[in-house]
Amino acid sequence: MSNLEGKTIYVLGADGYLGWPLSLRLHEMGVTVIRMDSFIKRSWEKLVGASPLLPLPERRLFIRALDLVEDAGNLYNWFDHCPPDAVVHLAEQPSAPFSMLDRRKAIETQRNNVLGTLNLAYAVAHAASKHGTPPAHIVKLGSMGEYGTPNIPIEEGWLDIEHKGFKDRMLYPKKPGSLYHCSKVHDSHNLEFLCRAWGFRVTDLNQGVVWGLGTKEAVFEDDGMRTSFHIDEIFGTVLNRFVCQGALGSPLSVYGNGGQTRGFIHIEDSLRCMITALENPAAEGEFRVANQLTEIASVKDLASRVSNITGTPINYVHNPRVEAAVHPYRVTHEVLPALGFKASQLLTDDAIADMLDRVSARAELQTRRDELEATPKVLWRQK
Amino acid sequence: MSNLEGKTIYVLGADGYLGWPLSLRLHEMGVTVIRMDSFIKRSWEKLVGASPLLPLPERRLFIRALDLVEDAGNLYNWFDHCPPDAVVHLAEQPSAPFSMLDRRKAIETQRNNVLGTLNLAYAVAHAASKHGTPPAHIVKLGSMGEYGTPNIPIEEGWLDIEHKGFKDRMLYPKKPGSLYHCSKVHDSHNLEFLCRAWGFRVTDLNQGVVWGLGTKEAVFEDDGMRTSFHIDEIFGTVLNRFVCQGALGSPLSVYGNGGQTRGFIHIEDSLRCMITALENPAAEGEFRVANQLTEIASVKDLASRVSNITGTPINYVHNPRVEAAVHPYRVTHEVLPALGFKASQLLTDDAIADMLDRVSARAELQTRRDELEATPKVLWRQK
Repeated sequence: MSNLEGKTIYVLGADGYLGWPLSLRLHEMGVTVIRMDSFIKRSWEKLVGASPLLPLPERRLFIRALDLVEDAGNLYNWFDHCPPDAVVHLAEQPSAPFSMLDRRKAIETQRNNVLGTLNLAYAVAHAASKHGTPPAHIVKLGSMGEYGTPNIPIEEGWLDIEHKGFKDRMLYPKKPGSLYHCSKVHDSHNLEFLCRAWGFRVTDLNQGVVWGLGTKEAVFEDDGMRTSFHIDEIFGTVLNRFVCQGALGSPLSVYGNGGQTRGFIHIEDSLRCMITALENPAAEGEFRVANQLTEIASVKDLASRVSNITGTPINYVHNPRVEAAVHPYRVTHEVLPALGFKASQLLTDDAIADMLDRVSARAELQTRRDELEATPKVLWRQK
Repeated sequence: MSNLEGKTIYVLGADGYLGWPLSLRLHEMGVTVIRMDSFIKRSWEKLVGASPLLPLPERRLFIRALDLVEDAGNLYNWFDHCPPDAVVHLAEQPSAPFSMLDRRKAIETQRNNVLGTLNLAYAVAHAASKHGTPPAHIVKLGSMGEYGTPNIPIEEGWLDIEHKGFKDRMLYPKKPGSLYHCSKVHDSHNLEFLCRAWGFRVTDLNQGVVWGLGTKEAVFEDDGMRTSFHIDEIFGTVLNRFVCQGALGSPLSVYGNGGQTRGFIHIEDSLRCMITALENPAAEGEFRVANQLTEIASVKDLASRVSNITGTPINYVHNPRVEAAVHPYRVTHEVLPALGFKASQLLTDDAIADMLDRVSARAELQTRRDELEATPKVLWRQK
């Protein structure tokens, strides 16, 4: 039995790829789950002409509509009446390309993410003060992309530094790769400050690239329960896109030389990591950072694996991003395993073949050929 | 003769303590100066009941009203018609206590500072693209308070790190001391990313506490030309406040034990540093950071110097901030001197005595006694 049974946990961003299945899982575990979402991501999708591979039902009957930037007062009221033990904060604009589209979308990304997180922090502080309790544990999703690709090993949020004969434990210096990733770095700085100033309890999860069709609660084939599965350039993640390209027999589009190396994690393991963090909350004043990934691969390796199964060629296209073509990637990820997390699903040929079978079975895939064969349109560099 | 003669330089925040005299100085140097300000700081002052010691004239005839967050399109138009060689960005909410007053003011601080800077960046990129020129040099004012008080020496924005046998030059890890300081750290991260992504040319000046009544262009006694001189808890800086307390014969209010050590710089030298940076612009793609201070002192030392001259006692009050009471403060400040900057005005007894004489001569000072003797009201910690 989980120690979360009977707890009250808010899932912000409960309409999303991770938020929806997480909210279902927590509910099954006996948690009082309060799902919130502004549904703004559905508007952003329309704005850029993106849609999930399979349609999603409206979920307004299961998810409370609340905008963290605009409705802070409403969030205060919720926390007054139903104080949180923990908050899982997934209510951020989640796409690097979206943030690089133009000025308005860059502003929208940082406005939504930075000011939304700050409003959440104030609501948590207000609830703690009103109820005379320690602040709710905030589990905040960050990204491995915040670190960039430094030459020194990537530690988990903190770094012991010796300099000119003096030592200190410092925040790990980050080099985010987009204005979206910058917004996540900003959130981390705000929350780390509030751990020092207000005794906040924060777990900052720097997540790798998530892949997978869903979980047992949110099955891909279930029209009512599936989670959003994006394959477009803006909201799709790399393995999910390769699988759909491979299933169509389209070339697998690798940006640049594919030497970019990244951390990966299956959606099921992403849920397990978040639940592990919830079951083992950060202490008062603790800004705890964990790197949330289960394996490391280069983009070229991923494409090769899909190509070997499907026989589709790899198409190396001009990299629209500004990122190192070849770089070291030495990543520590020990915090979550030390708390009991174990990976359940690695990137095996069987797992890829299963995804290929299941997306191939969907007629919707055939309508996405143009999109999956297009050259990337969102360029990091200004023209 | 300065190499700035004939250049076009925008001063954003031209109604402020530093922006106003800087804009006058640049004008005298033969620069085409375009002054902009949203005048929002005057609204913030009203909001918190603060006002400068001496009244300021309306300056709308000399300063273009433009809000960086709301009027980005207008800034694009300005840059189209009158392309900048450089932009000095002083248009930020400048007060740590203001940012810690309540949720709305924290949000307002980060909204104004982070989104305003991001809009400015897009306008600079747009102008470079339109005119086919390198991006304008952005001189951005930051704060020494972004670093916090680490145990290792404080370098100038960058740090050579060796870790597990590998080396890299990383951004110096910062531990900002308020949500205002956090907003400055966010700006630095956004701009450093844009140096990598768009070849931006940025000088990030981490400034110490500025003191002084004005400059030769903006003389304290000149009703038409003076710059804003704040002595209240929100917008006043520590030495300026001590001088006014001393001039009134009121106790000098030191927060905590006064062991907090900080960098200081006279307003004249602040101008000279910014002009030095402008005369020696950052290269394309360079995120150059300089620590802008001329000397280091503890708050207790400052109070002692004023107390020794005035005979007023020191009153140690409960520190409303969250900051280390005793800490090392080893600060490198070599970048600006290497570019030719020399300090012109140090914190001597003569300089303090001159300030004391000049504020004592003003009848307005007598009306501020209650304010200068009040205990601090803005508490960092949530109740």
